[in-house]
Amino acid sequence: MSTGHVFEVDFEPIGKRVDVAPQTTLLEAAQAAGIDLSSACGGIGNCGQCRVMMLEGELSAPTEDEQYILSDVELRGGQRLACSAHIHSQVKIYVPKSSLITAQRLQIDGVSGELTLDPIIDAYDLDVPAPTLHDPRSDLERIATVLASVHNRPNIVAEPAVVRQISTLARQQNWRMTAFLRGAEIVGLAPYGTRPVGLAVDLGTTKIAAYLVDLTTGQELALSGGLNPQIGYGEDVISRLTYTRRHPDGEHALAVMVRQKLDELLDELIQAAGVTRDQVADVCIVGNTAMTHLLLELPVHQLAVAPYVAATGAAVDVKARDLGLSIAPGAYVHLLPCIGGFVGADHVAMILASGLDQAEHVVLGIDIGTNSEIALAKPGQSFLASASCASGPAFEGAHISDGMRAAAGAIEAVKLTETGLQLKTIDDALPVGLCGSGIVDAVAELRRWELINERGRFNRANGRVGQGRHGSEFLLAPAQKSGSGRNVIITQDDVNEIQLAKGAIRAGLEALLQATGTAPEEVKEVIIAGAFGSFLNIKSAIDIGLFPSLPQARYKQVGNAAGVGAKWALLSRDVRARAQQIAANTDYIELTTYPKFNRLFALGMLFPTLLMDTALS
Amino acid sequence: MSTGHVFEVDFEPIGKRVDVAPQTTLLEAAQAAGIDLSSACGGIGNCGQCRVMMLEGELSAPTEDEQYILSDVELRGGQRLACSAHIHSQVKIYVPKSSLITAQRLQIDGVSGELTLDPIIDAYDLDVPAPTLHDPRSDLERIATVLASVHNRPNIVAEPAVVRQISTLARQQNWRMTAFLRGAEIVGLAPYGTRPVGLAVDLGTTKIAAYLVDLTTGQELALSGGLNPQIGYGEDVISRLTYTRRHPDGEHALAVMVRQKLDELLDELIQAAGVTRDQVADVCIVGNTAMTHLLLELPVHQLAVAPYVAATGAAVDVKARDLGLSIAPGAYVHLLPCIGGFVGADHVAMILASGLDQAEHVVLGIDIGTNSEIALAKPGQSFLASASCASGPAFEGAHISDGMRAAAGAIEAVKLTETGLQLKTIDDALPVGLCGSGIVDAVAELRRWELINERGRFNRANGRVGQGRHGSEFLLAPAQKSGSGRNVIITQDDVNEIQLAKGAIRAGLEALLQATGTAPEEVKEVIIAGAFGSFLNIKSAIDIGLFPSLPQARYKQVGNAAGVGAKWALLSRDVRARAQQIAANTDYIELTTYPKFNRLFALGMLFPTLLMDTALS
Repeated sequence: MSTGHVFEVDFEPIGKRVDVAPQTTLLEAAQAAGIDLSSACGGIGNCGQCRVMMLEGELSAPTEDEQYILSDVELRGGQRLACSAHIHSQVKIYVPKSSLITAQRLQIDGVSGELTLDPIIDAYDLDVPAPTLHDPRSDLERIATVLASVHNRPNIVAEPAVVRQISTLARQQNWRMTAFLRGAEIVGLAPYGTRPVGLAVDLGTTKIAAYLVDLTTGQELALSGGLNPQIGYGEDVISRLTYTRRHPDGEHALAVMVRQKLDELLDELIQAAGVTRDQVADVCIVGNTAMTHLLLELPVHQLAVAPYVAATGAAVDVKARDLGLSIAPGAYVHLLPCIGGFVGADHVAMILASGLDQAEHVVLGIDIGTNSEIALAKPGQSFLASASCASGPAFEGAHISDGMRAAAGAIEAVKLTETGLQLKTIDDALPVGLCGSGIVDAVAELRRWELINERGRFNRANGRVGQGRHGSEFLLAPAQKSGSGRNVIITQDDVNEIQLAKGAIRAGLEALLQATGTAPEEVKEVIIAGAFGSFLNIKSAIDIGLFPSLPQARYKQVGNAAGVGAKWALLSRDVRARAQQIAANTDYIELTTYPKFNRLFALGMLFPTLLMDTALS
Repeated sequence: MSTGHVFEVDFEPIGKRVDVAPQTTLLEAAQAAGIDLSSACGGIGNCGQCRVMMLEGELSAPTEDEQYILSDVELRGGQRLACSAHIHSQVKIYVPKSSLITAQRLQIDGVSGELTLDPIIDAYDLDVPAPTLHDPRSDLERIATVLASVHNRPNIVAEPAVVRQISTLARQQNWRMTAFLRGAEIVGLAPYGTRPVGLAVDLGTTKIAAYLVDLTTGQELALSGGLNPQIGYGEDVISRLTYTRRHPDGEHALAVMVRQKLDELLDELIQAAGVTRDQVADVCIVGNTAMTHLLLELPVHQLAVAPYVAATGAAVDVKARDLGLSIAPGAYVHLLPCIGGFVGADHVAMILASGLDQAEHVVLGIDIGTNSEIALAKPGQSFLASASCASGPAFEGAHISDGMRAAAGAIEAVKLTETGLQLKTIDDALPVGLCGSGIVDAVAELRRWELINERGRFNRANGRVGQGRHGSEFLLAPAQKSGSGRNVIITQDDVNEIQLAKGAIRAGLEALLQATGTAPEEVKEVIIAGAFGSFLNIKSAIDIGLFPSLPQARYKQVGNAAGVGAKWALLSRDVRARAQQIAANTDYIELTTYPKFNRLFALGMLFPTLLMDTALS
């Protein structure tokens, strides 16, 4: 252990090696090897997130922190905190998946379409005469005069927050500036020639996707995503609303939380795009009705109890500073309108981006999430119809034994063969669990090979069906081949969860078709939106009866259409007008009061006879 | 000093007596006697404001605080801090004026005039159908529909802050409410039948006057006034602007300070009027350009250096919450427009309230303050002319040896006779000093009796002219007859200060007449606005040459016309439109660059030959 030596550290199962100086900590070595170990405490031995296991070699003796955080059994088994263990020899270290920071995979591309660039923000480059004793007009008036006389923009107004910016910037920039206008209102100024950018956000119950867009070219400059931090206060909408009911300041706390997250995402975006906050002149946000209510700190109690009424469903224009976003001082946040308490602006954005409101044949639009929304466009009718299904979070991996979000190690595709099994995992990592598309695939394969019957019961007579603590199960990956060191399985309960979820969606879809007098064959196009929908194997979805048995070519997976709709609303006034039309002219069909819904739901939970669709209607 | 005894405390010169228990502090005794001793620290011996002098009797020994705050000489002379000295016997205590909280006398009545009641706020009493499963329209939409269908007010909008109020209030009030509208925007709601009220403010450099007005009847419900708390950061505009220059966060600090004061005044007003904060649906504020800039936290540096440019001179509509005022959640503050960097919205309001913009003959409007503004209306000309004179704070009692604000004990009128002297003080208290009107009176009388000459020099040959530490002086009240225990005098320096002040105003007035080609005799009416102007003896003002020698009947003292203008702007949309016209069509005459100004100023400083006006022009 003499100075000057280096020791080789071998990180398994990743298979990365790195040479480090003696006494280096395992955390430092992992960082040197480009391995992102979790370390919430910053490496001071407090959080216990950087657990690893020593397979070979010699490390420093366990510290007091390690003895406090790790059990005796764990320590004897070789478990260590990477931040606290120093390297005393060549070592081989096992890094469990749970100790890795796994980047969340978000679907942030979406459909593309034709759009006439006509953002609500106009930028004007201004040469303004400086004030003199003979021309002591106010700073704002000087700028307003140039906008009127040179650019034909009369009657200019600006809030104090913007006037505050003018007086300083004008003198710094010798009266050469660019003004960002929204109608007759100056929302911000920037040095001469600066191009305005906009922020588009799809604010989901679970995930947030954010985009920075050049308002002059329509180009996407940066994208980012993250989890909605309100998740800690309820995974689904209803439990989050319940939280606000039980905590007097709950609405405020949840609002502040998500606003801060948006500001953080903005920070990432402006750094990635190399722009300034002052340059961000417009924001457009979509989300379901509860999420936009929580963002605006609107009362939500009436949203959680019958008759489930929104405080407002109209489009909202609110100053960005009122939502804690530091951008151009007078900039607005535009929230698209909602259709109802359960059909939010995100659905309007999806309809926009997938063009349902301009469809020339019968089109279904489906956005699968914790709540799934379905819209039906029928040309010749002057309105759209939409419904909302409480499908639950099973397709996001929740309430599934080995369910997980779409992160590294998640099984995203499954194929059973006569005797074997093929898995595809995200990042080709060792399997850790199943994400939504993997679950659908797995259940479809179980049904195909008759391991489960039409009612979803495991066939215990089949030798491939195992028995575990919770009854029948199917083994996807044994402990020794998994990233978690545990078996990855599908249980009877998991299959039941999937039945409930797909039953709700299919029943909603059938109810919508019935209520509008539409036969399934009439549907010429089915738009599948959302992150889960993008990675979904359509054949598997049809096979389990989630979707009707239409020719596969009619299905179109468009990704995060809601996010695209938000971007479009940044780029086009016409899109905002269309959103108003959609919200006003969409008939919301309340499924809980739809007469045949319970029967449709019961049928929807069944699995179709192999490779054939059941006649549900 | 046995328990159970009481001791009598005699407070002089007020002449109030009170019986207290032994060991009571002098501060407690004073409070029991209804004497308001200053005590910024709340009686903990820190601030030194409650100094009194023991004339007879026995008190506890001086505390450490007293020894720290009071000098040895003061202690030996019997001075004590009332909060720290305990009563050990019957005592007689002298309370100097400087230790009393003296209520500020404000001129808060003003001119009255005819006004068509047409406030920008409309109130509608609403009966709204409650939501059901078959009618789940949003809360806002339900209200908007009633406003459209019953009251013919379509296209209603409301900010999130207001929507927040709706959902709760509607359910509390069983969907019967009153909505306050400003155009198509709901700014607030209240229980059914509530009448909206408005707040008008005249925000002066020294004083703030605030009025609560019933927007349905135009009736004034309550009035209040106070000092602008920014006074501690500079008595006049320029020193206050300098403060912001020297302190990085100065603009913010001064803004917060005055906003808090406004909220305090509002609190007094709503309590006095028995209304709620939610009922206050509109605010109108006037002030000079610097004061409104500081209120809005606009940059002021450019206002303090040539060419003295306002950040904005336009009328401003800003959400009340952005100025820290908690009223109806969507309510606005309207600030009237300015004419220039030195001619503010208060001057516009004065012109409004005194009807200069609608005058049918030549009218001068004069508002005397630290800065004095003068406007000239000349029918036949399409514009008004105005000028601003840096008259300084002498007329407010500042920079005058015994000058003081218009509080109890201030000499407000002076009359010399052949051998004697008559004084009138505010509240008929013992004289403590001179307020503005008293100073003008005193100087006029000195000149009348030739105690000063045309150039303002004391005539030392006259036996009534005394000699003090600072040269010649005139004794108004000897120490033994004064409230302060000190002589109240007028010195040579005081006379000079008055000459500078009145010279500046008179020169401005003459310049304005010259610049507009107006002979003094053409002026058919002279409107004197402002608190000082209301108490002014017009004859004395003419005698010292402050005003031209026109028939006294042409002078009209209208009180706080600026405050009245602010009230009117609350009550009438037309008045707001007139304000825009006034700001747009008033020619500002910059006196510092006016060719003959220096000569006019020199002449203006002279005192007229006795009972005759000098020919200045």
